Amino acid sequence: MSNLIEPRTLKGFRDYPPELMLPREHLLEQARKVYRSYGFSPIDTPAMEYAEILLGKGGEESDRIVYRFKDHGDRDVALRFDLTVPFARFAAQHIGQLGTPFKRYAMGPVWRGENTSAGRYREFVQCDFDTIGTTSNAADIETSLVIFDLMRALGFENFTIRVNNRLVLNGLLEQLGLSNQAVPLLRALDKLAKIGREGVIAEMMDGAENHAGVTREQAEAVLRLAETTGSNVDILNQIDADFGKNPQTAEGIARLRELLAVTARAGVPEKNLVLDLAICRGLDYYTGTIYETFLDDLPKIGSVCSGGRYDNLAGLYTKQALPGVGASLGLDRLLAAMETLALLPKTSTAAPVFVVQFSQARLGDYQRIARMLRGAGIGVEVFPEATKLGKQFSYAEKRGFRFAIVAGDDEFQAGIVKVKDLAARQEISVAEADLVATLQAHLKPA
Amino acid sequence: MSNLIEPRTLKGFRDYPPELMLPREHLLEQARKVYRSYGFSPIDTPAMEYAEILLGKGGEESDRIVYRFKDHGDRDVALRFDLTVPFARFAAQHIGQLGTPFKRYAMGPVWRGENTSAGRYREFVQCDFDTIGTTSNAADIETSLVIFDLMRALGFENFTIRVNNRLVLNGLLEQLGLSNQAVPLLRALDKLAKIGREGVIAEMMDGAENHAGVTREQAEAVLRLAETTGSNVDILNQIDADFGKNPQTAEGIARLRELLAVTARAGVPEKNLVLDLAICRGLDYYTGTIYETFLDDLPKIGSVCSGGRYDNLAGLYTKQALPGVGASLGLDRLLAAMETLALLPKTSTAAPVFVVQFSQARLGDYQRIARMLRGAGIGVEVFPEATKLGKQFSYAEKRGFRFAIVAGDDEFQAGIVKVKDLAARQEISVAEADLVATLQAHLKPA
Repeated sequence: MSNLIEPRTLKGFRDYPPELMLPREHLLEQARKVYRSYGFSPIDTPAMEYAEILLGKGGEESDRIVYRFKDHGDRDVALRFDLTVPFARFAAQHIGQLGTPFKRYAMGPVWRGENTSAGRYREFVQCDFDTIGTTSNAADIETSLVIFDLMRALGFENFTIRVNNRLVLNGLLEQLGLSNQAVPLLRALDKLAKIGREGVIAEMMDGAENHAGVTREQAEAVLRLAETTGSNVDILNQIDADFGKNPQTAEGIARLRELLAVTARAGVPEKNLVLDLAICRGLDYYTGTIYETFLDDLPKIGSVCSGGRYDNLAGLYTKQALPGVGASLGLDRLLAAMETLALLPKTSTAAPVFVVQFSQARLGDYQRIARMLRGAGIGVEVFPEATKLGKQFSYAEKRGFRFAIVAGDDEFQAGIVKVKDLAARQEISVAEADLVATLQAHLKPA
Repeated sequence: MSNLIEPRTLKGFRDYPPELMLPREHLLEQARKVYRSYGFSPIDTPAMEYAEILLGKGGEESDRIVYRFKDHGDRDVALRFDLTVPFARFAAQHIGQLGTPFKRYAMGPVWRGENTSAGRYREFVQCDFDTIGTTSNAADIETSLVIFDLMRALGFENFTIRVNNRLVLNGLLEQLGLSNQAVPLLRALDKLAKIGREGVIAEMMDGAENHAGVTREQAEAVLRLAETTGSNVDILNQIDADFGKNPQTAEGIARLRELLAVTARAGVPEKNLVLDLAICRGLDYYTGTIYETFLDDLPKIGSVCSGGRYDNLAGLYTKQALPGVGASLGLDRLLAAMETLALLPKTSTAAPVFVVQFSQARLGDYQRIARMLRGAGIGVEVFPEATKLGKQFSYAEKRGFRFAIVAGDDEFQAGIVKVKDLAARQEISVAEADLVATLQAHLKPA
C-alpha cells in the first residue's frame, strides 16, 4: 500500500522543462529588448482582481472561461484572462500620474478555462505592447515597425505583417447603408481564410439574431473590396478611385498610405508588410489600423502577432477617453509551433562549459577557474561529485555542454588545463592564463 | 449618475508601474545570468495545481493561506504558495527523463492569502535555485558561491552570508539526549535575533504541547553552542574541541570546513561569508547546511536569500529519494526595501534617446535614424505627435530620457542632427554618419 500522491498537472496545464524554457526565455528576452528599444516601459498588474473589474459588462464568453472564486475575505475575485483588461483598469487608475502618451509592455501568464487542443493551453504567456493617449498615426506606424523588428529579433526572415484599416471598410458599409450591421459583417469577413468565400457570403446573408442578414449583392460588394489585390500602392490607388469619396474611407486610405511610406523610408521591405483589406479582427473593439502577422513557412498556425487601434481603452473605469494602438505576441503559440516542427535547439543548459571533478581535493581550484570564466561572461558548471569520468562525460553530453575542462594535480602544477570539444571529441592543452581567450574564441557565434 | 466601475486592486495586491518594474526586471535579469552561469537551467510549472498536490499532508498554516477553489470541471484546485512544492511534484514526475544531478532555477509569482504588512504582499515573485540528486558537499559549497555572485550582481558589496550546518546542532542535541525535541528547540533558537536570549530560553523551557520543555541548563547548553563567536576557523576549532566526538557534529564541522576552504580559494572574502551557529531556519525540512543573507546596511529587513540542504525533496510523490540543496532570493522584499529607502533610480524609460517630432513630414526620417540607433543597441523613442516643442521636452524630462534629437528640413539637408543633453542642457550638432558613435561614447557607463 502506498500513501504517495500521484504527481500530475491539471488538464490543459503543462510543465516547462529546460528544453522548452530556454527558448521561451530567449523569446521573452528578445521581445523585451525590442519593446524597450522603442521606449516602451514594463508594467505588471496582479494575476488576481475583483471579478467585477475583469468581467466588466460581462458577456457569456468571458463568464464561461474565467477562473472565478471567493477569496479569504469572501471577495468575488477572478484570474486575468488577458493583459488588456487589467491594463485598462491600470490606466484608468494611474493615468493622472503617468501622463500621456503612455507606452507600456507587459508579459505574463493569463488563464482561460476553455477547451484545450493541440498547442492551446489553459495557462499561457501573453506579451503585449500599447501606446495610449494619442490618436496620431505615428503611433500606428510605429506599431508595425515594432512588429517587424520583433519578428526579426525572434529569428524570422520569412513573415508577412498584414495591415488594414477599419475606416476603409466602415466607409464602404456607410455607402452601402450597412453601418448598423458592421459588427456581424466584420465577424463574418474575419473568417474568410477559414471558411472561404461562399461560407462568408452565406454567413453575411444569414438573417438570424446577431447576424447581418444582408442581400447577396451587398455581401458581394463587401467581399469585392476585401479581395482587392495587387501591390500595396495599386490597392490604395484602386480603392481610392472606387470608394475614396467617403470621408471615412479617405481617412483610412490616407493613414495606410503614410504607414507604407514611413515604414519603407525606415527600411522595412515591402515583402514583409502588405496591405490586406480582408483582415479585420473579429472584435468590435478595434476602430482603425489592424495588424496580423503570419509565418510564411507555417501559415496554418494563424497570426502570431495581432492588434490594432482602438478609440477608448478604459471606458468601463473612467470618463477620460484613452485612444490607443497596440499588439500582442502569441509567444506560447509560437513556441508550441516551433516545438512541433522540431525548430528548438536540443540543449538543456545555458552554460557552455563543463568542469569535470577529477579530484575532490581540487574543488577549490575548479571553482576558482570556473569563477574566472564566469567573470568573463562564460557559463561554467562544475560536476558536484568526484565520480567516474565516464559518468561525468555522459552527463555533460546529455545536457548539451560544448566544452569540458579536465585537470588534476599534474595539470595544476604545470599551470595548464585540458579542454575537450565534446562534439568534435578533440582535446587541447591550454595554459590557465589563456583559458578565457581560448574559450571566448571558440564560443564566438559563427 | 455614473455606471463606471471603480478601478482598484485587491487588498494585499499591487500594480508595478515602470519605475518599479524596471528595477524588478533588472534584478530578475541579474539573477537569471548568475544562475545560468553556474549551469542551472530554467523550468516553469503551472500557477494552478490540484489542491491535493500543493497541500500535501496539509498543515493548518498552508490550508489557511492557500487560494483554493473549484475549477470548471469541479476539480479541487489551488494556486501555488511557493516554488518548492511544485518543484517537488515536477521532480517526482520527470526525474527519470531529466537524470541526476539536476540543477534548476525558477522565477515566478506565488500567492498567499495572509495578513499584509509593510513590504509584504499576497502576490510576490520568488526566485529559487536548487541542485537535486546529490548529497555531495560540492553542491552545498556551490550554493554559497551562487549567493555570493548573486548579491554582487545585484549591486551589493556590504552583505553577509551566514552559514551553519544542522548536523552540528543535531549532534549536540544527541549528546544532551534531546534529539526528540530538535524541532521545537530549533524553532525557538531561530527567533534569537527577534526575541533575545531570555526569550529563547523561556520558549525552550515551555512545557506546552509542541514545545520542547527542557531544563534551563539544557537550554543554556544549546545557546552556548549557538553563541560561539570568533573567526570562522576559531569557531570551528572550538566546537571541534568541545563537541567534535559526536559523529554528526564532526560531519557538520568537516562540511563547513571544506565550504570555507573552497569558497576562499575561489575568491570569496571572509567578510562576506561567516559561520553563525545560531542560524538554523525554522523549518524541520532542512537537514544540513543552512544559509541566510543579510544586507549590512539594512539588517532589519531580515534575510534576503535563504536556503539549505534537505534529505528528500519529493517524498510525498515518489519513493525515489531526492536529496538536494538550494536557496531562494526574496526579490520583492529586496525591491520593497530599496523602494522605501529611495535606492531606486528615478527613471521610467529604458530607452536613453528621445526624438522630437519637429515636422510630421519627416516622420520617415525620424524612424530611419531611430532604427539605425536601435540597430546599434541604443533605445530610441520617437514622439508620436508633431506638437509644440515645449510639450515634447517636458514629456522627455518627466520620463527620464538622457538625450533628445532635434532635426528639421535644414538639418536633414545638411546631413546633421542636433543632440541635446537633457540634464546638462547642452546642445551639439552631429553629422548623421557620426550619430551612433557619438551617442555610444556619451552613453558608456562611467
